[in-house]
Amino acid sequence: MKKVRIALDAMGGDNAPFAPCRSLEFIRTDHEIEVYAVGDDAQMRKILAGRPVHGVTLIHCARSIQMGEKVNRRLLHDDETSMSRVLTMVKRGEVDCALSAGNTAGFVGLAITRLGLIEGVDRPAIAITLPTVTGGRMLLLDVGANVNAKPRQLLQYGLMGRCTARKILGISQPRVGLLNIGEEQEKGDDLRREAYQMLAAAHGATFVGNIEGQELLTGKADVVVTDGFTGNVVLKASEGVARSFRTLLRREILKNIRGRIGAFLLSRNFRDFARRIDYAEYGGGILLGVNGTVIVSHGRSSARAIHHAMLLGRKAVRERLLEELTLSLAQG
Amino acid sequence: MKKVRIALDAMGGDNAPFAPCRSLEFIRTDHEIEVYAVGDDAQMRKILAGRPVHGVTLIHCARSIQMGEKVNRRLLHDDETSMSRVLTMVKRGEVDCALSAGNTAGFVGLAITRLGLIEGVDRPAIAITLPTVTGGRMLLLDVGANVNAKPRQLLQYGLMGRCTARKILGISQPRVGLLNIGEEQEKGDDLRREAYQMLAAAHGATFVGNIEGQELLTGKADVVVTDGFTGNVVLKASEGVARSFRTLLRREILKNIRGRIGAFLLSRNFRDFARRIDYAEYGGGILLGVNGTVIVSHGRSSARAIHHAMLLGRKAVRERLLEELTLSLAQG
Repeated sequence: MKKVRIALDAMGGDNAPFAPCRSLEFIRTDHEIEVYAVGDDAQMRKILAGRPVHGVTLIHCARSIQMGEKVNRRLLHDDETSMSRVLTMVKRGEVDCALSAGNTAGFVGLAITRLGLIEGVDRPAIAITLPTVTGGRMLLLDVGANVNAKPRQLLQYGLMGRCTARKILGISQPRVGLLNIGEEQEKGDDLRREAYQMLAAAHGATFVGNIEGQELLTGKADVVVTDGFTGNVVLKASEGVARSFRTLLRREILKNIRGRIGAFLLSRNFRDFARRIDYAEYGGGILLGVNGTVIVSHGRSSARAIHHAMLLGRKAVRERLLEELTLSLAQG
Repeated sequence: MKKVRIALDAMGGDNAPFAPCRSLEFIRTDHEIEVYAVGDDAQMRKILAGRPVHGVTLIHCARSIQMGEKVNRRLLHDDETSMSRVLTMVKRGEVDCALSAGNTAGFVGLAITRLGLIEGVDRPAIAITLPTVTGGRMLLLDVGANVNAKPRQLLQYGLMGRCTARKILGISQPRVGLLNIGEEQEKGDDLRREAYQMLAAAHGATFVGNIEGQELLTGKADVVVTDGFTGNVVLKASEGVARSFRTLLRREILKNIRGRIGAFLLSRNFRDFARRIDYAEYGGGILLGVNGTVIVSHGRSSARAIHHAMLLGRKAVRERLLEELTLSLAQG
């Protein structure tokens, strides 16, 4: 099969360029990806230090966008940053997919200006997959592309989420829900009440109505739609709770000798478990609605997480997600 | 010391009247509370079945508000529901505190109409305490009283949260933060940007700025302010993650014999831990801003959780939280 070509922003992320460069070492020939790592050549070479990397081309680019940098017109018009370069490569058809763990607002803004939006989409959304307690996966969107969402945009997220759940999660009839503060349809603020009606009309029987926070990971819905402010806070709070849970558990376990022996016996089970719930393992979100395949990784991504994000990009390309979205949104 | 008198809505909650009635059995004489349980006399007596309960008076009330019931004018004007009765008892000075685990929107609406608001407050907020990884506690508000909040109201939540952290958590100089999607002050939607300025001006050095979702339980802020929609979703999602975490952990542990032995050795540590992170153990939220002491319990509250909510009510009364809020908000 033809290799999937990915342009990686080697300078994006809290741990960049270290984590993106080290992620290259995870690539095996059977992954069938070809990576173009865009960043400071000297820094990239120093980190790689002659280690063998398969199917990787380094592309020098001196400028990069900083994590906390404010997104303004100047930044969006600068073609010489690593973030802008990876998107331009997608635009020109030089690669199939762009990936960055850098400044999210910057990457989203640049993706809109460089690639444009697909027809029928007002604003893009970032969709991520999360594990459910039933052993499956679900899709949450938007987790931070657009913080002032309109009802009509939540409707579009539902349509895009449905395509994505089909293609990426392999669910033939995804059930769509609206993140809200109660079951009844009149619950929530003005945004939710209007979006509820629109989603119900568009999805018919596959709309499962409101999903409360505690139901997010129960598998009640395959696609959960929300505005980018709520989605971002909920995602990060969930990560925080999972992390505190681990910290507190460790502390409780190590407080007596019985606990220490138990923990020793359980060490392998704990490791498997921690991996299952670690969001970093899931790599990244897909930026839906722009006219190109774009993967947005978490700023705190490890090398392994970025590698997983590449495999997510490969999946999106192989499954022709963009074509499906374009077709589906044009139909309305 | 004088006993604290609490009016309990025995008909409110998913498990009512069972859970509220059974909560009465946890009351010991040294708790120094006197409870007036308002509800259907026959049902309450049947559940209690002659079990000894200290310092409890049953008050018959035939009508109650259902969990999913829509809050309308008729419901708010009905004086003969158990929920309305407990609030009227506070208003008349017959008790010091009202408590319900019933329909939250109904209880908040009734509390506003029956008790009125304290000066300087536009809308009340529900504040709950959560455990932090550093072993302390923090206060999150609003978790669902007001879903369409204005910047000025977030400012008021900050002031009320500060008083509450002083009185209930015993923190002399509480640090106040704003729940947001990034550290920088220009982050977030319009509501957050305006609220940020107001909170910074009001709290000076004790304002610690934006708190991201993953920092909620780290102890970085003692009081975290947000709108009722976001607060409710975040709280419930956190509960959901904690619950899925337990489910997945149990499944991983029991999958092999080594794990089973380890789990047996760890059983006591696990129990202590589960109790620490179980939100139900924390009992309830305080409805801040109304002119009376009102405790709002989680709809899914167990008998033990409702009992803990009573003790929270006692604390609020003993610490004269209402007087402190009234004084502090009048000063602005």
